[in-house]
Amino acid sequence: MITGHVFIAASLDGFIARSDGDIGWLLERDDPSEDHGYAAFIQDIDAILMGRGSYETVRDMPEWPYTRPVLVLSQTLRDRDAPAALAGKVRFTDMSPEQAMRMLEAEGRRRVYVDGGRIVQSFLRAGLIADMTITHVPVLIGTGRSLFGAVPSDIPLIHEATRSFPSGLVQSRYRIAP
Amino acid sequence: MITGHVFIAASLDGFIARSDGDIGWLLERDDPSEDHGYAAFIQDIDAILMGRGSYETVRDMPEWPYTRPVLVLSQTLRDRDAPAALAGKVRFTDMSPEQAMRMLEAEGRRRVYVDGGRIVQSFLRAGLIADMTITHVPVLIGTGRSLFGAVPSDIPLIHEATRSFPSGLVQSRYRIAP
Repeated sequence: MITGHVFIAASLDGFIARSDGDIGWLLERDDPSEDHGYAAFIQDIDAILMGRGSYETVRDMPEWPYTRPVLVLSQTLRDRDAPAALAGKVRFTDMSPEQAMRMLEAEGRRRVYVDGGRIVQSFLRAGLIADMTITHVPVLIGTGRSLFGAVPSDIPLIHEATRSFPSGLVQSRYRIAP
Repeated sequence: MITGHVFIAASLDGFIARSDGDIGWLLERDDPSEDHGYAAFIQDIDAILMGRGSYETVRDMPEWPYTRPVLVLSQTLRDRDAPAALAGKVRFTDMSPEQAMRMLEAEGRRRVYVDGGRIVQSFLRAGLIADMTITHVPVLIGTGRSLFGAVPSDIPLIHEATRSFPSGLVQSRYRIAP
């Protein structure tokens, strides 16, 4: 059975980026000497699913940060839109969350990193997320791209663990109650 | 120097109540056997400031929960609107946050509990909050009354401490960076 997993940082008021995608407020509070667990998290992941917004943010980074195959859910982007340097590393599809997960499952994938605000929201609504690691960054930015959004009904969570870091980051892991 | 202090619970997606004021989702996740620190917090408080929304929620409780004088900021409510049972316990004013704090300071108050979503937001914007204890409840409710709102510019926070409880509540204390 394939499962979706979230590992994401947000301002204390719940934004993963400013409206224009800027995450400078987050990066400037990151302490590279702290181990926030991303390497351990990604170790158990065999595919990555994200939306166009997240893809366009990482696409323009000097180095492609992912060591797992990436599937981008987009109504507009097609495989031919991928830069040559990303051939074999990223695919695009206009599938629904359920269809995309079924396709990855048919390919033998089991644990999928689901990244980006709107994608996390749609996967939560579709019941496709097994657990979430949320890292709160100690700042209020007031507006931007929300981590969470509307839900068809309450989504109860089971708190598994919380830790804080000298940088002020607070990281909690929750399972989605079945 | 008078200071404002926040002690409040919110769903993980940042709501302090549903749109109609309902907090059943919060109460049902409260474990009365856990000490979440409210008694210790209120011990050092000598006045309470809230908005009309919070007042109308607590006014209808079987018992008035506050042991400190309450000042309600409201454009519409006046002292004559208070139920007889609350005489001497609650006052109303249409003062601005700054004016209300100056009045309380002139009365000898030093540490004010600032409660309720819109009031917390306006006091944060006015720079009147010294610290916040935020307790995240393990549920996503999707919509409702937001704990936080727009800010004129980023508000950096200094993380002081975080603890979690067997009930799944996660409580963090932040100072507002000067």
